Amino acid sequence: MGDIFGQNFRITTWGESHGGGVGVVIDGCPAGLPITEEEIQVELDRRKPGQSRITTQRKEGDVAVLLSGVFDGVTTGTAISIMVKNKDARSSAYDELKDLYRPSHADYTYEAKYGLRDWRGGGRASARETIGRVAAGAIAKKILTQHCGLETLAYVEQIHDIKAEVDRDQVTLEQVESNAVRCPDSAAAALMIERINKMRKAGDSVGGIIGAVVRNPPSGLGEPVFDKLTADLSKAVMSLPATRGIEFGLGFGSVYMTGSTHNDPFVLQDGEVRTRTNKSGGIQGGISNGEDIYFRVAFKPTATINFEQNTITRDGKAVQLKAKGRHDPCVLPRAVPIVEAMVNLVLVDHFLRNRLKNNQRLSP
Amino acid sequence: MGDIFGQNFRITTWGESHGGGVGVVIDGCPAGLPITEEEIQVELDRRKPGQSRITTQRKEGDVAVLLSGVFDGVTTGTAISIMVKNKDARSSAYDELKDLYRPSHADYTYEAKYGLRDWRGGGRASARETIGRVAAGAIAKKILTQHCGLETLAYVEQIHDIKAEVDRDQVTLEQVESNAVRCPDSAAAALMIERINKMRKAGDSVGGIIGAVVRNPPSGLGEPVFDKLTADLSKAVMSLPATRGIEFGLGFGSVYMTGSTHNDPFVLQDGEVRTRTNKSGGIQGGISNGEDIYFRVAFKPTATINFEQNTITRDGKAVQLKAKGRHDPCVLPRAVPIVEAMVNLVLVDHFLRNRLKNNQRLSP
Amino acid sequence: MGDIFGQNFRITTWGESHGGGVGVVIDGCPAGLPITEEEIQVELDRRKPGQSRITTQRKEGDVAVLLSGVFDGVTTGTAISIMVKNKDARSSAYDELKDLYRPSHADYTYEAKYGLRDWRGGGRASARETIGRVAAGAIAKKILTQHCGLETLAYVEQIHDIKAEVDRDQVTLEQVESNAVRCPDSAAAALMIERINKMRKAGDSVGGIIGAVVRNPPSGLGEPVFDKLTADLSKAVMSLPATRGIEFGLGFGSVYMTGSTHNDPFVLQDGEVRTRTNKSGGIQGGISNGEDIYFRVAFKPTATINFEQNTITRDGKAVQLKAKGRHDPCVLPRAVPIVEAMVNLVLVDHFLRNRLKNNQRLSP
Amino acid sequence: MGDIFGQNFRITTWGESHGGGVGVVIDGCPAGLPITEEEIQVELDRRKPGQSRITTQRKEGDVAVLLSGVFDGVTTGTAISIMVKNKDARSSAYDELKDLYRPSHADYTYEAKYGLRDWRGGGRASARETIGRVAAGAIAKKILTQHCGLETLAYVEQIHDIKAEVDRDQVTLEQVESNAVRCPDSAAAALMIERINKMRKAGDSVGGIIGAVVRNPPSGLGEPVFDKLTADLSKAVMSLPATRGIEFGLGFGSVYMTGSTHNDPFVLQDGEVRTRTNKSGGIQGGISNGEDIYFRVAFKPTATINFEQNTITRDGKAVQLKAKGRHDPCVLPRAVPIVEAMVNLVLVDHFLRNRLKNNQRLSP
Repeated sequence: MGDIFGQNFRITTWGESHGGGVGVVIDGCPAGLPITEEEIQVELDRRKPGQSRITTQRKEGDVAVLLSGVFDGVTTGTAISIMVKNKDARSSAYDELKDLYRPSHADYTYEAKYGLRDWRGGGRASARETIGRVAAGAIAKKILTQHCGLETLAYVEQIHDIKAEVDRDQVTLEQVESNAVRCPDSAAAALMIERINKMRKAGDSVGGIIGAVVRNPPSGLGEPVFDKLTADLSKAVMSLPATRGIEFGLGFGSVYMTGSTHNDPFVLQDGEVRTRTNKSGGIQGGISNGEDIYFRVAFKPTATINFEQNTITRDGKAVQLKAKGRHDPCVLPRAVPIVEAMVNLVLVDHFLRNRLKNNQRLSP
Repeated sequence: MGDIFGQNFRITTWGESHGGGVGVVIDGCPAGLPITEEEIQVELDRRKPGQSRITTQRKEGDVAVLLSGVFDGVTTGTAISIMVKNKDARSSAYDELKDLYRPSHADYTYEAKYGLRDWRGGGRASARETIGRVAAGAIAKKILTQHCGLETLAYVEQIHDIKAEVDRDQVTLEQVESNAVRCPDSAAAALMIERINKMRKAGDSVGGIIGAVVRNPPSGLGEPVFDKLTADLSKAVMSLPATRGIEFGLGFGSVYMTGSTHNDPFVLQDGEVRTRTNKSGGIQGGISNGEDIYFRVAFKPTATINFEQNTITRDGKAVQLKAKGRHDPCVLPRAVPIVEAMVNLVLVDHFLRNRLKNNQRLSP
Repeated sequence: MGDIFGQNFRITTWGESHGGGVGVVIDGCPAGLPITEEEIQVELDRRKPGQSRITTQRKEGDVAVLLSGVFDGVTTGTAISIMVKNKDARSSAYDELKDLYRPSHADYTYEAKYGLRDWRGGGRASARETIGRVAAGAIAKKILTQHCGLETLAYVEQIHDIKAEVDRDQVTLEQVESNAVRCPDSAAAALMIERINKMRKAGDSVGGIIGAVVRNPPSGLGEPVFDKLTADLSKAVMSLPATRGIEFGLGFGSVYMTGSTHNDPFVLQDGEVRTRTNKSGGIQGGISNGEDIYFRVAFKPTATINFEQNTITRDGKAVQLKAKGRHDPCVLPRAVPIVEAMVNLVLVDHFLRNRLKNNQRLSP
Repeated sequence: MGDIFGQNFRITTWGESHGGGVGVVIDGCPAGLPITEEEIQVELDRRKPGQSRITTQRKEGDVAVLLSGVFDGVTTGTAISIMVKNKDARSSAYDELKDLYRPSHADYTYEAKYGLRDWRGGGRASARETIGRVAAGAIAKKILTQHCGLETLAYVEQIHDIKAEVDRDQVTLEQVESNAVRCPDSAAAALMIERINKMRKAGDSVGGIIGAVVRNPPSGLGEPVFDKLTADLSKAVMSLPATRGIEFGLGFGSVYMTGSTHNDPFVLQDGEVRTRTNKSGGIQGGISNGEDIYFRVAFKPTATINFEQNTITRDGKAVQLKAKGRHDPCVLPRAVPIVEAMVNLVLVDHFLRNRLKNNQRLSP
């Protein structure tokens, strides 16, 4: 259970690190949307390993194939199936991991739950699972861009203790993509890359913070009382591997303020209801108010390291684990498009729900 | 939409601040659980306004009535309906709020979404809505206590800039309930109460941080890949009014560590797989590993203040809003049992799913 | 589980025959619909027992109370809660049924499932459970009437072996309501009433067939591949007590035809795509084609009879059961508004889904 | 929407007649079930076209590939993806159908709904869509056979006006598979085959009735009040192409009986609660009572015929449609394994739910 996400734009993902492939089925995409394999590939290429030396050195082709739901270049309203075949199947590399639990990985918890596990490359717990999310996110993004006018942008805000200065209102996709670490502050980016390289050489790993902004969202997204936009975005983002926390607007920082300094006064601006400040991060009472939505996500340091670590085998015997060779010292650069995908999947779901609602302001 | 929560223990809540009442229907509670109105009332009394001077001074009876699904004192397996009648219906007090948008409340977003709103006391956006959650949570708690052996405990960890020292392993319900602010550190509690009182007099408000721990959880709770325990707990907690952020384990603090210092080594202890440290907060790969689960939740300062505030009317006219009389300068003490309820609702849902799964380790 | 129905207009029903009451919560009703308790009461009165001598003689008040989701006479978009208190709580009348299984009732199956049962009047398995469905159906009906322009009409077509002649195109609500048996063929109705009275005197019971027609439905309702309109209507109707079968269009009769005689040729009529015949019953490929939707439902003879019957106790001891006093010799007249309610609940759900879809024919 | 089915064993199907392929993703299959591609292939081969002259002559390979969720021959508890590539992609054969609506097909309704359609071979409305259902059904069947001990068997009971004599208690899979029409009454089967051949030569088509029995089901399957076993089986079966009706137990025939002759008396037999007769078809109050479950399904004559038919084009122009070449004069033989698959999918879903419930008869 747990492989289906969404209510009106429902995705089902499948696939393990070293099985036949990974993929996604989208149920509820409206008919008439022009979409190509190339457009999906663009987003997959952003999350692909081997883009630069600072992320994982594993090379994966990750070529998206569109198997159903699109005819003559446009969606038909029926289930869209997208698949990426697995290629890098050197599972023998994992033989020694078969009988032991890697610290802070999902090895033990999967076994505790299922009584067995696919130990090749983490199986279903591998970040490779997110390919289906990103493919579906590419379609969500196109709907949102073309029919809703909003833009979602994520970027690296902090790596280890190196913090970037990012102007949330001005940052562009080009700036984000301008360096290997996907941090729009180029000075900080240089330091981050240096730190990550140092970690790789040391066999260690680091985490960090990804910031995200949704510009020009419609008001009215989010449903009382459980499917608040904050709640659904939190679930979406916190379902990603290695996430440890999320905060909206001023988040944990709002705690140090008072109501009188934190409240956002309403003003009329160019005939529209706006707030003078946006400390709420664009969401009030769980529903978007039309201001930019923004939040931050904490990622822990990657569990895979090139260190000798103490652990136990399936029989409970204490052993030493030494991860050999390549490892991913920092997942954040690759996580940027994945966070964007999850945000867009939540937004398109609520956009479709809301579209319905808007029509449903029944008048006599 | 959005009034239903859960998969195997599904709750539907209903009700507004000043309508006929508030309530919940539980679908999926197993048969055979002894439960009384009194046991539900205990939890409702913890969230009830007017318990002390530091929270809202509005007095509400909040008497739970069990309408269905229980026969001869035990659950029958069919839908359980619990209702609390509304009493304090002085809606005229809200007349002046009818045509304007209170800053950082849900007034404007509800109108943006629905084209109209129930302006009496915030309508469905009122925290009174959480009564149904707490009532259902009381039943979830009983199942978990009796059949799962776990204990969920929440407490106030910080108010404004006053931080408590809390020993997560030792804190007891008695300590939490020992003072009006529900902070187990009595020295900090005294300062917090003083601060809240100061805020009330100033007509201002404060937020803070609630910490929570789940002791003795079973391993195996949480479903790959979307219904991870972190994801479902995040959605549950972030669907509460005034929440701004959540972090599990070391959360945003983990960012300053490296993989080698953050990983939790596995050890065998008394024949059980355990981790030597618990920086992961009891959840790895989205599934519980049997260690204590813990997390922290940020609450913003309450939007209702006794200050003159700038805002606009429904027609876009700039006006001054002055909230008069009583207000709740700090929601955290009352939010403690509500956070516990949401955690227990998620845990019982996963416990029931998992119970099925455990049986489902099919053997030849 | 199983107390929630629908996807975009979701209802949760609760309540037993002799508990505190019965009710429904509606999640997903659009804002802005004017609705009153009186309008709901009209439909409840149609299903109410004690309307005439031929149905059950039990008198129930069944007064609907609207508890939430409606403000100033219109829906607010939030959860609508409707409750009917139970009055006729003479549960002692059921004392002797406590320890035995009434033949063809749900007594045994509930115990087999749950290990216990509420034996007062059938508990949750009582037809009293349908009150919540009918109340929600009244709201669905109003949306459909005002915003979709369709009309759903059900009627008794057959009782025991007495068949009515009904002109599906012309039958009116007035005709249906013109006699106690809700059969628009008054000659047949007289015979049916006579038969039912005879059965009551004999202590026996009869079943029959209810026909239903949806006039002027929009095309495009129904979703491939599982949520076909035929599939969802079948589930809705076959979830009613005592139903044994359903058939759409020519149903089981279509088996005796060939493709060349059964197919419905398309024609253009007044600029609209129509079919010359309507053997398909308005649904092709699971989606409405704009022609009238029609189907028939078989109800078995009521299980409650005034006969001495052989059965066993909970301990497996063979005993004689003699139902005493009042019984309902034929449920069909009261089932007519219940079938209509279920049809309207399915239609409004698909109407809301479809409305979204229609908007979603994205154009460049 | 509408491509997902089930609650605890959820399947998502995808694929069109002439796209890249068809397939299914299963969410919620328990871990530890041994399953091979060969076992899935067995069921696919039963539904495959071209098995004999009496069904469609189109040859399809239909080779199942298991892409995820199975490791070392057993299920891992994670999403299972099964795919069948499309081969027979001669879509040019459909060019002439592009702009017109075939009578009683889904051509028009898909366009009415989506504004466009994949006109190659019916697109998503093609019966080829059921491949994913049958593949998933093979896994459901294995769970039920090994862990629940029940057996589901479907068979052709009637073709056109030719009725078979089938002893529901004794019929075997071997008898069903012993002839091309899948009718266990060999004398009737011969007549049926003759009739189908006659229809093919005439360019016409016929429908019929499929009977089904579930032997040795556990009691307690089915959930009050909406997810009754009758309701869920009805939805499942009525979501299949060409179905027109379903009846359980004595179905429409029960209408001619009275309560005193229709009720099934309980008896104790070998220490088990049984019913002396089984007119209820094994389901009472929507829940299985442990007796055999049986029902009948009506299929209309196939819409594809080799006749000149009147219809209109997308522009509303009256035209003559002449289907050329091959057609499937009777779908019932191939529908037999598909009905079985749908029944098994419903049963495994309820079996898993119930398993949970059974555990949940909480004892002090």
